[in-house]
Amino acid sequence: MPKIDLDKIEPRLGSGYPGKLGDEMGGRSSKRISDVAGITQFGANITILQPGAKSSLRHWHENQDEFMVVLQGVCTLVDDHGETELQLGDCAAFPAGDANGHCVVNTSDTEARFLIIGTRTATEVAWYSDIDMKVTVNDGVYDFTRKDGSPFSGDKE
Amino acid sequence: MPKIDLDKIEPRLGSGYPGKLGDEMGGRSSKRISDVAGITQFGANITILQPGAKSSLRHWHENQDEFMVVLQGVCTLVDDHGETELQLGDCAAFPAGDANGHCVVNTSDTEARFLIIGTRTATEVAWYSDIDMKVTVNDGVYDFTRKDGSPFSGDKE
Repeated sequence: MPKIDLDKIEPRLGSGYPGKLGDEMGGRSSKRISDVAGITQFGANITILQPGAKSSLRHWHENQDEFMVVLQGVCTLVDDHGETELQLGDCAAFPAGDANGHCVVNTSDTEARFLIIGTRTATEVAWYSDIDMKVTVNDGVYDFTRKDGSPFSGDKE
Repeated sequence: MPKIDLDKIEPRLGSGYPGKLGDEMGGRSSKRISDVAGITQFGANITILQPGAKSSLRHWHENQDEFMVVLQGVCTLVDDHGETELQLGDCAAFPAGDANGHCVVNTSDTEARFLIIGTRTATEVAWYSDIDMKVTVNDGVYDFTRKDGSPFSGDKE
């Protein structure tokens, strides 16, 4: 059945970020739609942000296009240009290789939701704009390091 | 700038279907976001349906995943299971190779809009569920034929 029963998809909490960096992801959860829906070529997730929460650390992808559309509430896009308010139906795109790191913050006092689409690739490297960290992904295994490839615990800058 | 200025994207009318089949696409238009946004790995379009309009002839893709979310109004999904109503925020997915032909119809009396995402591939074959037609796509060139590959004008069943 093509229609997705979103009520049956439990929002996933938590973060894969190393050390204390994960603490910054409180108030964010994600409904992972693609796996339930049987699509494999791109990921489709609904990110749910409680007031004050953010979607991720500010980052950009080397190889994967990303695209988002706001489904509920107001989202504040943070990137190299500053802050941009996104309302219901507003879209933003993050082309692969564009080194303009981005994240989304809920600066309102009500829950916000957006759909995020990202190409799936077997390998990927993403770079974090505000800290000395990158992540290398191989077949679903995430390896967070400093930008020079040396180990990074996430507990110190 | 990642935010897309949707007001600056003119909706495209018309249809590439052969012959009189294109006449069935009146009242449908599409804002093509991906090209403006600089993403290439999947297409992202907003389809706008006036009352009574439909998104396409009912079809399925051999190689490309598709995904939709309703952004305004009510959309009726038509597939092998019948008709399913989709409201604001409802999502549906159409995995590559799933021979469940689908289209979306606006059976309401107000405009409806949905975002449609589809993987981009250099070649593709899509099959039409209700008529003897398929389309073979090579690098953006669409070749509509009967299902056995013989010519099809679109003017007769």
